[in-house]
Amino acid sequence: MTISTMSELFVHGLQDVYYAENQIAKALQEIMTQVTEPALFDLLEHHVEETREQIARLEQIFKRLGRTPQGVTCQAVLGLIEEGQELQRTINNKQVLDTAILASMQAIEHYEINRYGTLIAWASELKRQGAQNTPSGEVDIVDLLQLSLDEERGQDARLTALADSKVNRHATRG
Amino acid sequence: MTISTMSELFVHGLQDVYYAENQIAKALQEIMTQVTEPALFDLLEHHVEETREQIARLEQIFKRLGRTPQGVTCQAVLGLIEEGQELQRTINNKQVLDTAILASMQAIEHYEINRYGTLIAWASELKRQGAQNTPSGEVDIVDLLQLSLDEERGQDARLTALADSKVNRHATRG
Repeated sequence: MTISTMSELFVHGLQDVYYAENQIAKALQEIMTQVTEPALFDLLEHHVEETREQIARLEQIFKRLGRTPQGVTCQAVLGLIEEGQELQRTINNKQVLDTAILASMQAIEHYEINRYGTLIAWASELKRQGAQNTPSGEVDIVDLLQLSLDEERGQDARLTALADSKVNRHATRG
Repeated sequence: MTISTMSELFVHGLQDVYYAENQIAKALQEIMTQVTEPALFDLLEHHVEETREQIARLEQIFKRLGRTPQGVTCQAVLGLIEEGQELQRTINNKQVLDTAILASMQAIEHYEINRYGTLIAWASELKRQGAQNTPSGEVDIVDLLQLSLDEERGQDARLTALADSKVNRHATRG
């Protein structure tokens, strides 16, 4: 594969985040089985649903571009998931484990926030220069990506609030 | 290694970001050789300096905790760096390559922003519960970490401004 244009780079970015979202959906199912704090479990469960919607949104964008939805291996998300799992295996205290799981989920959220932010910047520029047009009656690609970005930011904020209000305090109290 | 307390989890977090910063310092040197846009080169060069200061700050924190500075392999940052390099090798247009390098640097910034944010939350809670005290006349660990977080956020904002004002536009124009 050779990339020569921003349109091609944009498609590669979509494939990268499509692979990442699918890996995250799988990892979430496994991580949820290790959580003790019910409010953290609920946030992860909520995010499984959001991740499914984000995958569907990416499929809608691929379709708009006349492409079959397809992922490319994303080493970054594999590293984030693997690092979280490795750390979790070394923790023998349930409250401390909740804290580590929450932090690991936030690292993944930040990765996605960054990737959606980049894709939005690229799609906006492609649109501005007339390389990506929205057929009338269809939702704009930028707006679809923005919905996912807003969800990721919302989840990150909810995780921070739970860490501050409860999870970190309980784990530190021991 | 087994982790049972928040103090131990905090030290692990420090070791993770210490390893990450050292990997980033090395990767930056290599990435800089591939950049075409002078303003992007300047931002990366500036960040090499910041990264060195951030490493020194982490060493100061290790010392405060009576520990030898030491890293633990951070799969996440290795994945981020590897993914960036793999993508860059497939790009045969200099302006598009600049865009990809800028995006890859922002992914790394976001990883660090997240990690420093987490370490600050943990250190604040450890301090609040009296598990981490600052000797009089010394800078607080939370404040040291906050300096690095502010630098990472500043760098991320400068990269976004450069992407929007120049790099993405040039790459899309072709």
